[in-house]
Amino acid sequence: MEQTDEVASLSKKAQKKAERLSKKMAAASLSTAATAGGDLAEDALAANYGDVPLLELQSKAITGRKWKKVSELDASLNGQSVLLRGRCHTTRGKGKIAFLILREAGHTVQCVFQVEDNVVSKGLIKYINSLSKESIIDVEGTVDIPSAPINGTTQQVELKGRKVYCVSKARPVLPFNLEDASRSEKDFQKAEQEDLQYVRVNQDTRLNNRVLDLRTSANQAVFRIQSYVSMFFRQFLVSRGFVEIHTPKLIAGASEGGAAVFSLDYYGQPACLAQSPQLHKQMAICADLGRVFEIGPVFRAENSFTHRHLCEFTGLDLEMEIKEHYFEVLDILDELFVFVFDGLHQHCSKELEAINEQYPFEPLKYLKKTLRLTFEEGLQLLKSFSALLWQDDGIELDPFGDLDTASERRLGTLVKEKYNTDFYILHRYPLAVRPFYTMPCFDNPQYSNSFDVFIRGEEIISGAQRVHDPELLTSRAEACGINVKSLSTYIDSFRWGAVPHGGVGVGLERVVMLYCALNNIRKASMFPRDPTRLAP
Amino acid sequence: MEQTDEVASLSKKAQKKAERLSKKMAAASLSTAATAGGDLAEDALAANYGDVPLLELQSKAITGRKWKKVSELDASLNGQSVLLRGRCHTTRGKGKIAFLILREAGHTVQCVFQVEDNVVSKGLIKYINSLSKESIIDVEGTVDIPSAPINGTTQQVELKGRKVYCVSKARPVLPFNLEDASRSEKDFQKAEQEDLQYVRVNQDTRLNNRVLDLRTSANQAVFRIQSYVSMFFRQFLVSRGFVEIHTPKLIAGASEGGAAVFSLDYYGQPACLAQSPQLHKQMAICADLGRVFEIGPVFRAENSFTHRHLCEFTGLDLEMEIKEHYFEVLDILDELFVFVFDGLHQHCSKELEAINEQYPFEPLKYLKKTLRLTFEEGLQLLKSFSALLWQDDGIELDPFGDLDTASERRLGTLVKEKYNTDFYILHRYPLAVRPFYTMPCFDNPQYSNSFDVFIRGEEIISGAQRVHDPELLTSRAEACGINVKSLSTYIDSFRWGAVPHGGVGVGLERVVMLYCALNNIRKASMFPRDPTRLAP
Repeated sequence: MEQTDEVASLSKKAQKKAERLSKKMAAASLSTAATAGGDLAEDALAANYGDVPLLELQSKAITGRKWKKVSELDASLNGQSVLLRGRCHTTRGKGKIAFLILREAGHTVQCVFQVEDNVVSKGLIKYINSLSKESIIDVEGTVDIPSAPINGTTQQVELKGRKVYCVSKARPVLPFNLEDASRSEKDFQKAEQEDLQYVRVNQDTRLNNRVLDLRTSANQAVFRIQSYVSMFFRQFLVSRGFVEIHTPKLIAGASEGGAAVFSLDYYGQPACLAQSPQLHKQMAICADLGRVFEIGPVFRAENSFTHRHLCEFTGLDLEMEIKEHYFEVLDILDELFVFVFDGLHQHCSKELEAINEQYPFEPLKYLKKTLRLTFEEGLQLLKSFSALLWQDDGIELDPFGDLDTASERRLGTLVKEKYNTDFYILHRYPLAVRPFYTMPCFDNPQYSNSFDVFIRGEEIISGAQRVHDPELLTSRAEACGINVKSLSTYIDSFRWGAVPHGGVGVGLERVVMLYCALNNIRKASMFPRDPTRLAP
Repeated sequence: MEQTDEVASLSKKAQKKAERLSKKMAAASLSTAATAGGDLAEDALAANYGDVPLLELQSKAITGRKWKKVSELDASLNGQSVLLRGRCHTTRGKGKIAFLILREAGHTVQCVFQVEDNVVSKGLIKYINSLSKESIIDVEGTVDIPSAPINGTTQQVELKGRKVYCVSKARPVLPFNLEDASRSEKDFQKAEQEDLQYVRVNQDTRLNNRVLDLRTSANQAVFRIQSYVSMFFRQFLVSRGFVEIHTPKLIAGASEGGAAVFSLDYYGQPACLAQSPQLHKQMAICADLGRVFEIGPVFRAENSFTHRHLCEFTGLDLEMEIKEHYFEVLDILDELFVFVFDGLHQHCSKELEAINEQYPFEPLKYLKKTLRLTFEEGLQLLKSFSALLWQDDGIELDPFGDLDTASERRLGTLVKEKYNTDFYILHRYPLAVRPFYTMPCFDNPQYSNSFDVFIRGEEIISGAQRVHDPELLTSRAEACGINVKSLSTYIDSFRWGAVPHGGVGVGLERVVMLYCALNNIRKASMFPRDPTRLAP
């Protein structure tokens, strides 16, 4: 058995051990090949392919072999022998040659197997043709730079294959093909012109078989970007002295007095799932932690079936002491999101490209210093342009009401036009449309020290200075019709001295959805939950 | 009004604006002082103290003043004027002098106010004496190096105070005193010798008033350490190519087939809270994410009242592809925890000191390469020493049963003795005591490719190679008496090709508790949940 480069590169000292193991592996592979059955038993090269028995995968041996990643394959490895593990994306065999596209984490490479004496047998070609799509396979071969560029793989090199083993077989029939699930609108348009019939995989089919759906290059990228967003969020906040906290999701009473909660029995006591870490993160501020953040699930039992609501999503929450003004929170928020957006731009170009391939989108426009408009300025902008743009004869906007989704979108368009940004802050919202714990403005109690933040005309963040005075807090809760008694532990926290403070809640999935201009929040949630979906 | 250093340091350009604001602030303070009432209205220096009206705190002005942190005060600031915000920890006035200990985030500094013409009035001293403990106050003064070292404050400098304003008043009577809540056993012993009577604040009183309890220096340190543990955990995993995921906590059926779940109604469907992200993190591996981790709440409806069980805690979970052997997971785990422990040692000396002050503990002993013992070796060690150490005549240990808590502790002691480490891995557990998805050993199916990790003789981590073969998984589930149908979306994930993989679950609160040798897990949970505690 030819030694792989990996074995050769081991130190002299380990050489003997490696040889011994290498022999063992070869023996194992031989016994393995037998499982491929039939006439192949007569194949002198039968050890070069076959199904790996489960026993071999139960941590039987440490051989020291090294696997390369498909994404690492480039021209610098030309001529080198490598070992890869990935999925059998597609196979195409004809006579003495077989093409196998190997996919790993959304990256693909073409492996070419050609019958050659003492290297690749006919049996191996036959074996490749028998592999089902999505099976996990090990491929050993030599990196090669093809004479003509390869279409349809992410890697520009190919592999001259010598060995192939199946680690885990996929069922021959899948709920859908990855190729179908990976097509863009452009592909469909092109197909129509060429009179081809492509299968469309609809959203429910995707979500019902999410594990398969998540394997597309675009989805691989979406969830890596989601991971980066939290990472940058944390990295920035930690650098600014924020402490990460974990507050309980199981609470007595309704978390913010709202009705849309999931209720449950807690050892005989009525309990519910926290709609946000709002009350407890404020309590952490009352507990002298100064600046805190939390990344965790929040639960909303709303009966919403929109493109942007989920019953369970990931909240990025922060809360901080303020010395004088709620603009201190906006300053942090501003720098934080510019840091996140800059980070994505710098570190995720490949991921963004992969998403763009399937779901084309305009890159997010944002300013280095985020635009801040007051709610009143926002209304003014909407009023002055609405007649002009949407041929309304002056829409009716309640100066102390909230903006509806359509108005938010319109305002987003106007702001983009006027200020060239998809990301901006709208502050000084009417008090009446904000939660009871929102601090009223010092100069006009009909407004509040609160704000929403928008990406592409949709809200991703809500925040405010909070009422830190227990008397005002109590009277505001009463004014909002909330049972003050159910909030006693929360309100009591402010009776032992409380610093002025403010904070924000961000929806992680919304940030990802809107940054990438995806059309549905379910695309940005790994296993989404809505009123009809509780699985997988 | 004398300009503060902060104002003086502003650029020329901002000077005028600052002066204007400075005058405004002075005017505000004057009106403020009036609220202190009585004869003080005649005090020419009345603007130097008083209650700040709420209106001023509702983001009325941005003055550009800068507040220093108490923890930042040191000899290098000698002679400088600073502005501080913190809590009135204690006050002690006698005649023309008042001592005020200001506390911020567990750090304390002594502020001395002495009556002096045109600087500090009698009215100010009187005002300080009227301040209730825990009130939030602003203090302005000059940093000074005292002639004799100060006892009982964390900062070695003191402040010659000139101004003091109350931002938020605490109720005059608190559930307990912070001083009482901060005492160590040593303090109590000393008090006994000196015939003093100290108040003990018991755990329930602390937890009922957790916001107050969290303000002790030890607790401030505990939750900063908790934050650091997650940070190091993430930092290491991200550097090794792990992707952070967020899996649903609302799931259909029982998460791992166990009985101890919280059930709820989900829009008419029966649902429960995930006992761990186990099933979904494995599904993320089946979805080609390669290496994933999650930090999030896990829910256990167990009726446990021990020192180490909670009904809701923070799980640090990871799951990764393995190429050959479950030791690949152990290698990651080993490096990960050495990274966490090294990080705590390097970055948290002050926090560890603060905890040690109240709850003295031996620093954790750990090896640079973590000790790995097989379960059998562990049993052997227990058997050979049990007679010797605990005068048992050879304890009965089931070779295929689990270790009870007492045996785990004993083994911890023996391992410490023999290998000089508080942190070690025990692997190759009997299959019968592990969950159905645990991979059996290749050479003996009575054992499994699984492990627990211990700190100071208590388990903090459980992990294993998982069964990636759908047929074996189904038969294992059936053998464990689990309703396979309720796990269909999980098991189906393995039918579309699955890589061998393994992972671990870590309890964040347990890591913090045992690293710091705290005697109860409730001390390491900000707002703990147990069968009788659902608030605050």
